[in-house]
Amino acid sequence: MIAPFSGRLIVQEVAPRDGLQIEPTWVETLDKIALIDQLSGFGFSRIEAGSFVSPRAVPALRDGEAVFTGIQRVPGTIYVALVPNLKGAQRALESGADELNLVMSASQTHNRANMRMSCEASLAAFGDVVELAQGTSLSLNGTVATAFGCPFEGRIDEERVLGFVDTYLEMGMQGITLADTTGMANPRQVARLVGRVLERLPATDLTLHFHNTRGLGLANVLAAYEVGARRFDAALGGLGGCPFAPGASGNICTEDLVNLCDEVGIETGIDLARLIDLSRTLPRLLGHEVPGQVAKAGRNCDLHLSPDYAKL
Amino acid sequence: MIAPFSGRLIVQEVAPRDGLQIEPTWVETLDKIALIDQLSGFGFSRIEAGSFVSPRAVPALRDGEAVFTGIQRVPGTIYVALVPNLKGAQRALESGADELNLVMSASQTHNRANMRMSCEASLAAFGDVVELAQGTSLSLNGTVATAFGCPFEGRIDEERVLGFVDTYLEMGMQGITLADTTGMANPRQVARLVGRVLERLPATDLTLHFHNTRGLGLANVLAAYEVGARRFDAALGGLGGCPFAPGASGNICTEDLVNLCDEVGIETGIDLARLIDLSRTLPRLLGHEVPGQVAKAGRNCDLHLSPDYAKL
Repeated sequence: MIAPFSGRLIVQEVAPRDGLQIEPTWVETLDKIALIDQLSGFGFSRIEAGSFVSPRAVPALRDGEAVFTGIQRVPGTIYVALVPNLKGAQRALESGADELNLVMSASQTHNRANMRMSCEASLAAFGDVVELAQGTSLSLNGTVATAFGCPFEGRIDEERVLGFVDTYLEMGMQGITLADTTGMANPRQVARLVGRVLERLPATDLTLHFHNTRGLGLANVLAAYEVGARRFDAALGGLGGCPFAPGASGNICTEDLVNLCDEVGIETGIDLARLIDLSRTLPRLLGHEVPGQVAKAGRNCDLHLSPDYAKL
Repeated sequence: MIAPFSGRLIVQEVAPRDGLQIEPTWVETLDKIALIDQLSGFGFSRIEAGSFVSPRAVPALRDGEAVFTGIQRVPGTIYVALVPNLKGAQRALESGADELNLVMSASQTHNRANMRMSCEASLAAFGDVVELAQGTSLSLNGTVATAFGCPFEGRIDEERVLGFVDTYLEMGMQGITLADTTGMANPRQVARLVGRVLERLPATDLTLHFHNTRGLGLANVLAAYEVGARRFDAALGGLGGCPFAPGASGNICTEDLVNLCDEVGIETGIDLARLIDLSRTLPRLLGHEVPGQVAKAGRNCDLHLSPDYAKL
C-alpha cells in the first residue's frame, strides 16, 4: 500500500557534476555556467555544480574554478562541489563552494577502481578535509557509494554500509548520501536500509542517489520516500552513468522524477515545463540522445490533437 | 512501506502482439514463430501471440493464422489473440487461439482514433464475440484501454472505467485488463483504481498492462502488486509503444520486470538469463535498439572483473 504522499521532496540537481563528468564531448565553461544558471532559476535548493578532482582523472570537469566563480549565485540555493581530498577541498573553498561532497565506496574493490585508494586511505583524506572545513562556512556531505551493491563484489553487507554512515557522522559531517552507483538497488532493500539509516540522522540530512541502470530508479525513490527519505539526487535528462555498464541509463532523470511527484501530489517546488524545455536542449549540447523519458513523451497534461476522423 | 512480497506474479508476454504490431520492418512468419516458441520454453503461462485485425490496419501482424497454426503449443501455456470483432474472433477460433482479448478504450476519442468506432459500437461487436465463444473452449478477456489517462482527453473518470469493467463482467468475460495505453498512470492512482477493481473480480482474473512511457512502469507494477494484483503484461525488450508519443518507451520490459521480481523475492517461474539472451537478439531482428535496460546492464549477479590496479 502506498503511504500518504506528504512532505516536500528535495531534488538535488547533479547533471553539472555526475552527468557531465563522463561526457566524451567537451562542454565549454560558458555552456556549463549557462546550464547551472538556468537550473538555479527553476527552484532547485541544491545543485552539485562541479568537482575538484585531478584534471587527468576527470578532464570533462577540469574547469571547476571557472564554473564556480562564473555562476550567478541564487540566494538560498546550495552549490555543492565533489572533492576527493584536501587539495580538492582547498580549491573548492577558494572557488566559493557552499558544501563539499566526499565520496568513498563501501566496496573496497570499487573504491580502489574508482578512487585508486583503499577505503581506509579515503577516510584518512576525509579527516584532513574535516579539519580544513572547521572554522569555515563549508558544510560537508559524506557519500557511501555502492551502498546497495558493487559491480565487482556484488552484495555489500548492510552493517558495513551502516558502519561508514556512523564513521562519517562521528567525523562531523552534516549530510550523508547513500549512492546506488551502478543501479543495483531494489525497492525492498532500499526501504530496509534507508529505514535503518534514518534511525541515525534526520531525513533533512540524508540524500538518496539512485541510478536507473535496471529501470528501478523511480520505484526506489518511492520506496525511500515511503519510509521517510526526503532528499534525492537526480540529473537533467538522466545524464550520467557508469563505465562498467555500457549502454545502460545513468542517474535518475530530474524531469521524470518531478513528473512523478507532480502526478502523485508530492511537492518539489520545481517547474516541470521549464525543466523539460531545458532537457530538450541537451542532445544538441552533448551530441547524443539522453535517457530521460518525460522530455520525449511530454507531461500528461500536454494533450494531443485527435485525428479529424475521431472527432466527436 | 513496501508490503510483504508474497504470491507468484504472472507475466503475460505480449511482445509478439503489442510489441511487433508497430514495427516498421516486416518480421518473417518463421521468425515470429521461433520467437514465440522460445518464449514458450521460458516458463510463461500466457503469451499474447498475435492479432486478427484488418491487415490494412496492422500489416505487421497480417500473418496471424500462419503464426497461430505454426507455433509449438506448450501444454499449460495459454495463447491469446487480440481481436476487434466477430470476423477476427472467427479467424482466431479457426487458428486455435485459447483466449481472445477484446480491446476498447475508456476514452471515446481514443477509441474512435484507435478502433475507428464509438465505445458503444465496440461493445456491440464484443456482444457478437461473446455469443460466438459460447459452447467453445475459448475464454474471453476484456481490456479497458486508456484506463489511467488518454492522450487526447486527459484524465478518465474512474467511475467510467469501473462501469466498463462491470459491463465486461456482465457480458460474461472471464478476464479483465486495465491498460495504461500511453503511460500516463502513476502509482498512487494505480493503487486506488486497482483496489476498487479487485472488489469486483479475483486477482487471478485481472491483468495490468503498463507502458513505461514516462519511466513509471515498474513503480506502477509494485503499486498494483501491493494492493493485490498478480498478473501483468510485459514485452521482451520493452517493445511496443504508441504512435502518439514518439521516441518514448513502449510496454514495460519483460526482463526488467523479472529482474525486479528476482531481486525483491517475488516468484515468476521465468528464467531471467535465457530471457536476456533472447532479448539481445532483438536489435538484429528489428534493425534498431530496444528500450529494455537489464539486457544492456546485465543482472546484478553478473559481476565484472575489477581492473588489475584495483585488485586486493
